[in-house]
Amino acid sequence: MSKLKVALVQMSVGDNVGVNLNKARQVVLDAAQKGCHMVVLPECFNSPYGTKYFPKYAERISDSVNLSDSGPSVNALSQMARDAKVHLIGGSIPEVEPTSGKFYNTCTVYNTSGELIAKHRKLHLFDIDIPGKIRFKESDILAPGNKLTQVELQLPSGNEEKKPQIVKIGLGICYDVRFPEMAMICARQGGCHMMVYPGAFNMTTGPLHWELLMRARALDNQMFVAACSPASVPTDGDDYVAYGHSMVVSPAGQVLDQLDGEEGVLIVELDLDLVQQTRQQIPIYTQRRFDVYPDISNQNQ
Amino acid sequence: MSKLKVALVQMSVGDNVGVNLNKARQVVLDAAQKGCHMVVLPECFNSPYGTKYFPKYAERISDSVNLSDSGPSVNALSQMARDAKVHLIGGSIPEVEPTSGKFYNTCTVYNTSGELIAKHRKLHLFDIDIPGKIRFKESDILAPGNKLTQVELQLPSGNEEKKPQIVKIGLGICYDVRFPEMAMICARQGGCHMMVYPGAFNMTTGPLHWELLMRARALDNQMFVAACSPASVPTDGDDYVAYGHSMVVSPAGQVLDQLDGEEGVLIVELDLDLVQQTRQQIPIYTQRRFDVYPDISNQNQ
Repeated sequence: MSKLKVALVQMSVGDNVGVNLNKARQVVLDAAQKGCHMVVLPECFNSPYGTKYFPKYAERISDSVNLSDSGPSVNALSQMARDAKVHLIGGSIPEVEPTSGKFYNTCTVYNTSGELIAKHRKLHLFDIDIPGKIRFKESDILAPGNKLTQVELQLPSGNEEKKPQIVKIGLGICYDVRFPEMAMICARQGGCHMMVYPGAFNMTTGPLHWELLMRARALDNQMFVAACSPASVPTDGDDYVAYGHSMVVSPAGQVLDQLDGEEGVLIVELDLDLVQQTRQQIPIYTQRRFDVYPDISNQNQ
Repeated sequence: MSKLKVALVQMSVGDNVGVNLNKARQVVLDAAQKGCHMVVLPECFNSPYGTKYFPKYAERISDSVNLSDSGPSVNALSQMARDAKVHLIGGSIPEVEPTSGKFYNTCTVYNTSGELIAKHRKLHLFDIDIPGKIRFKESDILAPGNKLTQVELQLPSGNEEKKPQIVKIGLGICYDVRFPEMAMICARQGGCHMMVYPGAFNMTTGPLHWELLMRARALDNQMFVAACSPASVPTDGDDYVAYGHSMVVSPAGQVLDQLDGEEGVLIVELDLDLVQQTRQQIPIYTQRRFDVYPDISNQNQ
């Protein structure tokens, strides 16, 4: 029996980085107190979401465990993971790459010692135009990432003689979830138990597609999906209202629990054995017809 | 403006082939009277669904337009398409291939002249085992198909000087819908506007997954999906109860209309321009990152 207790932090986000970081820190410490192994923050949790804000709030993010030249958000995230002794998926923050001057929407991940162990730059930028509803063009300002990102967490086995349990997680940010290839490759090639999507769908596409996309990724790949949004409240200087509805979905595609639009923390204990059980009951992993269509996760094809 | 008026025939199925075919014929003629261009029948509409029944009811199905050596169901389907002057997606019937003696679960498609224009053999056989709920193993009896199937229908343009409208449709049978590759390839490589799945989900997986899978295929590929089931009523000699809930889903993943479990006919007029409109508003077709992951629909990869 492998259990992973997860907290999704559906916080409201204001225009003051320090206030946002302090709020996140309190919730992370509290979730650790409640026995959570992993805490997930939402997309753009340290600053308002919008193309006009990205350059103002962008920080440097190291590519190594040495965080001395990283910005205040990365250092605060590292510190809260270490202090709380939890695995922390730090939502996303606006990143600036100092050499090129390019901006990214970037998720960072920390282990229980506060080490930066992964960095995912949003791969698919949010450029849509639904007339009369929403128009948004991240690519006016942001550059896209160029790789898939998977990360391994080590869970204590509860028994000193046993090896720690490894939990494998694939990362995507918000609009990335519309592209099924990422979850397919993470599940098949990477053996991931779970996809985690920090995201901030809006009030048009949220009601239409948020839950459907998360459930589709879970069911098609028989893996857990966790989606963490900011709360659905407008904040000072922020004209973008997120949908909220942070949720955890089972490998059978069922929503295990979800929030509504309000600020809150969703804590769910996941039975990781469900991944294998689901794959045994409906054995699509052995039934795929790679003699008829290619295996997208096979790098030799 | 290209409109396709579709009828999904959610009929109850008994153990008498002639009775089933006559029932289908009446509904097909009636749908044509109501202006439908295309009629879809459910999986295994001519005989009870179950491994023990397949050999008893299996018929030969020609690979050509000459149907003289095909069985009574194929000839009846051809006749009803011709008499009604509709495109007919003939659900599925048990097929026997005379040379090999192998059995298949096969969907046949007819144009308005009654010509057999496509034949899809179920590619993924339904083998599942959910303890205490359902165990089923099609592969005990059936052989799987070995190809994807797409078909083109010609709609009258309503104007003699104009060329007929082409509607491209990808086919899958029931359990095939769990494998996203089929719809991805049909949409991307084949340019299909729609997937049609004759299917007979059961009372366990139906409530869990039927709608979710159909909506996922539609949304991820921004195409219409039509799913046609037998009615949810046990018939003489038939111990398998289908879920029903035949439905049509829009390219934005919304259920346009659906039946419950009762016998009935669902008629929906589809605005085919919605495919292109949806792809313009949320332009995933131009945003996919084939520099990072392979394009499954690219045969050269």
